[in-house]
Amino acid sequence: MKTGTVVGRLWASKRLPELPAGALIEVQLDHPRDVIVCYDPMGCGEGERVLITIGAPAAWWFLPGQQRVVVDALIIGSLDEGSPPTMPK
Amino acid sequence: MKTGTVVGRLWASKRLPELPAGALIEVQLDHPRDVIVCYDPMGCGEGERVLITIGAPAAWWFLPGQQRVVVDALIIGSLDEGSPPTMPK
Amino acid sequence: MKTGTVVGRLWASKRLPELPAGALIEVQLDHPRDVIVCYDPMGCGEGERVLITIGAPAAWWFLPGQQRVVVDALIIGSLDEGSPPTMPK
Amino acid sequence: MKTGTVVGRLWASKRLPELPAGALIEVQLDHPRDVIVCYDPMGCGEGERVLITIGAPAAWWFLPGQQRVVVDALIIGSLDEGSPPTMPK
Amino acid sequence: MKTGTVVGRLWASKRLPELPAGALIEVQLDHPRDVIVCYDPMGCGEGERVLITIGAPAAWWFLPGQQRVVVDALIIGSLDEGSPPTMPK
Repeated sequence: MKTGTVVGRLWASKRLPELPAGALIEVQLDHPRDVIVCYDPMGCGEGERVLITIGAPAAWWFLPGQQRVVVDALIIGSLDEGSPPTMPK
Repeated sequence: MKTGTVVGRLWASKRLPELPAGALIEVQLDHPRDVIVCYDPMGCGEGERVLITIGAPAAWWFLPGQQRVVVDALIIGSLDEGSPPTMPK
Repeated sequence: MKTGTVVGRLWASKRLPELPAGALIEVQLDHPRDVIVCYDPMGCGEGERVLITIGAPAAWWFLPGQQRVVVDALIIGSLDEGSPPTMPK
Repeated sequence: MKTGTVVGRLWASKRLPELPAGALIEVQLDHPRDVIVCYDPMGCGEGERVLITIGAPAAWWFLPGQQRVVVDALIIGSLDEGSPPTMPK
Repeated sequence: MKTGTVVGRLWASKRLPELPAGALIEVQLDHPRDVIVCYDPMGCGEGERVLITIGAPAAWWFLPGQQRVVVDALIIGSLDEGSPPTMPK
């Protein structure tokens, strides 16, 4: 999994029906410093430190209720207070 | 998921039948600045800001109607006006 | 698989139920030098040299008992004493 | 998907039976400039501009006839004449 | 798939049972120059030039006999003599 900080939110009115309704959150990763877009089932806010999962496990989370979900990055936890990025040594 | 801008379109007359007919769109990602090719079910145009999904979830979108689809990147939404790239801090 | 060194531990009280209870360990990879978060079923400690698997195989480890597990990186072994990082030539 | 140029061919007489017989083609990607090895079901030649898919969708292409195929990159199309690499802006 | 050179071997006596017994080989990739760890079913030796597959296809190779295998990189072939790394142009 990866850690990062919520830096924004996106809107895409024109979207595939297989992209579930719900928040699309921009997260700046700690390593590497990329910004990616995550589906947020937890209602996170700007500046919040979060834990995300990437790839097939993100899409499987929606099963079995929602099949063919086109999500490849999901917020799975909010880091407790005092969890700054761990810098590589 | 990743955000990017449509920068071109590709034609591959000689292709596997498991690459469905339809638009092959070149998208320059915001992070990292690579150009990748996405299958476009939404009819996006040059310069449009788009949201894409990468990997197995892109191929699963074609199920159950089309099995063994060789797509690994899919345009899943068009970003609303005023959604410039979010720069890493 | 990748090798790395345990450099910390994370707590995320607010988390999805599909992120199983258990240790969330920060591992600094040998190549590239990123820090990622792994689910640790082995009880590793700070400074320990570990072997990890990334992607779908990490989530499949929880099957069949736990479905829809949102884990994409898993500690799968502790390297024997005297297993320093192998530097690229 | 990714675009690239055929730059060579490989032979591996000693191989797992789950690596199907057939051409192993070296492709230099346009972005990033890595060289990867693709299974080529289309008979491409040196210098040809090609479209490839990477990851699980490449292995699924062999189903259901061939299970457990150890391919993670597949040539899926030959780009029409006049399809030079699109340079990032 | 990727090409690389065998540069070492690892031992992890303390390991999950879902990491099958067998050689854990360190391979320096040609592109990028990272060192990763592969499960080796072919008995390769130091300095040998090898072909590897990465991700879900590596784990599927163990099916159906071994489920939930935590392998994400597998040696699938030994390159014939005279297969030096192909340098990007």
